[in-house]
Amino acid sequence: MTDLPASIDIHEEGPREGFQIEPGPISSADKIRLIEALAETGLHHIQACSFVNPRIVPGWADAEAVIAGFTPKPSVEYSALWFNGNGLDRALAFSDKLTIKGAIALTASEAFTRKNLNRTHEDNLAAMRKQTELHLSKGVSVNRLGIQAAFGCNYQGDISPARVVTVLKDGMAIAADAGTTITYFGLSDTMGWATPDRIERVIGEVRSVWPDMTLSLHLHDTRGMAVANAHAGLKMGVAKFDATVGGLGGCPFAGQPKAAGNIATEELVLLCEEMGIATGIDLDALIEVGRMAEEIVGHQLPSELIHAGSLNAFRRKAA
Amino acid sequence: MTDLPASIDIHEEGPREGFQIEPGPISSADKIRLIEALAETGLHHIQACSFVNPRIVPGWADAEAVIAGFTPKPSVEYSALWFNGNGLDRALAFSDKLTIKGAIALTASEAFTRKNLNRTHEDNLAAMRKQTELHLSKGVSVNRLGIQAAFGCNYQGDISPARVVTVLKDGMAIAADAGTTITYFGLSDTMGWATPDRIERVIGEVRSVWPDMTLSLHLHDTRGMAVANAHAGLKMGVAKFDATVGGLGGCPFAGQPKAAGNIATEELVLLCEEMGIATGIDLDALIEVGRMAEEIVGHQLPSELIHAGSLNAFRRKAA
Repeated sequence: MTDLPASIDIHEEGPREGFQIEPGPISSADKIRLIEALAETGLHHIQACSFVNPRIVPGWADAEAVIAGFTPKPSVEYSALWFNGNGLDRALAFSDKLTIKGAIALTASEAFTRKNLNRTHEDNLAAMRKQTELHLSKGVSVNRLGIQAAFGCNYQGDISPARVVTVLKDGMAIAADAGTTITYFGLSDTMGWATPDRIERVIGEVRSVWPDMTLSLHLHDTRGMAVANAHAGLKMGVAKFDATVGGLGGCPFAGQPKAAGNIATEELVLLCEEMGIATGIDLDALIEVGRMAEEIVGHQLPSELIHAGSLNAFRRKAA
Repeated sequence: MTDLPASIDIHEEGPREGFQIEPGPISSADKIRLIEALAETGLHHIQACSFVNPRIVPGWADAEAVIAGFTPKPSVEYSALWFNGNGLDRALAFSDKLTIKGAIALTASEAFTRKNLNRTHEDNLAAMRKQTELHLSKGVSVNRLGIQAAFGCNYQGDISPARVVTVLKDGMAIAADAGTTITYFGLSDTMGWATPDRIERVIGEVRSVWPDMTLSLHLHDTRGMAVANAHAGLKMGVAKFDATVGGLGGCPFAGQPKAAGNIATEELVLLCEEMGIATGIDLDALIEVGRMAEEIVGHQLPSELIHAGSLNAFRRKAA
């Protein structure tokens, strides 16, 4: 039994994920060039930058320059990432160009929460409670509940689907107390532990509690499983995915400096288009942007498709 | 409905596929080192070299030196590839170390047959008829029927499942006329056109004609779909796979010099082990061999897993 969606919604995170991890330096002009080129491919959502501490993530020290510098396209929603009130204020300064939406971000792995945030899960719940109130007090909506390390963790090992449900319940309690409604869950395979079976088990367990909640998958290709995992998600009806052009990115705090990044947007698009699932994206244009990304970062990116070319490109040649 | 196998049989083709395409030069000693290291991982089948024209494939000009030089392990079957009587004779000179088995090798794409072999499909059938007779006359069994470009072709475009069946019937007729029995079909995604759906359609169509034939998949990761395709094959009960350590290889005649190689053996093993499908392989040892392969070829290989490390390695650390 499959429940394939007719179309999917892709949240392109290449600029944010990629430039936070590249050793660089990469010029603001190149970042702007990539963001503007992505907007020409048919993508509707681009996460353009991260407003984080430049001492921790020097690759985004120029977030303001990049956001001020790019020319937005009306059909595209541009977003940013932040982790605290200071980051939120930096984002709010660009509310003319950025869609400012908050999220409750939790981690299924206690060990990763300590490693990544230097907090216990309980401390993180308290922090998220405060942050949710802060967002709402500034008129920023909080409708997304995201769970990192939802399929396993380099520091903790396996994560049970039951644990994911527990952490989702923790997040739902924060939302309920703050008086906001969660409209979708984002499940992140932060360190590449997912396999198709694990995707099915976690989604199955989550749906047994929240059968009608919209789910989004954020997949990393750390161990080469990302496309297979996306396929498993599609077959379960998942219609929202994060992805990065060229497979930019990775997890800077996961202790794997050479590891691959996120699922490559173009490989997800190829998979969908060949299954008859609409993406709204011009795949050949996106592949060209992947090649541009590779040129900008100055080393080979993990996407195989940008090196091979689309099937349609070869179909046209063969015709 | 799935029909997962309890275990799979992996035919490791890294040495043959990899060294035929690497610009090199790679020393015979390094080739021997890789073959011997692979034999220590639990693999039972290693395709060690290609006896081809050194002017066409200079990377295997030293096939004799490599085969003479490696120390075989009794638990491992070593094979080679050849395309004509001269190659067969070169292989037969090593029948003490190599398992010499013939195959009927056809291509579902007429355009690729012309491009790769400079023959029409009809000419190729005649050539295979002669070659099958030659093998049998020398006491070499011919029980495998392989179809290249079974899922699509860079030169011809889409290949219908019906066309694959037609070409398999052509091959079966050659076998019948020569008085040999085909015991398994090898379906090759030579240029990376397969998607999970296409795997299901082709296998379904082939099984509708030969319900009990053993099938083997030879997958290339040209467009990033190989693991997802292997997963689709496993779910249909396919239990034989070709793969290459590190994702070595590619198709030298497919016109994509930067394209990725075959499905990485270690990623296939990870997928299987996490699904409870036995491979007999020590994944961590295999990952180390993948890293050795990367060091030997002197550039980053497409396998993501060799850069990330196995899940079990992190499970042990986390425990």
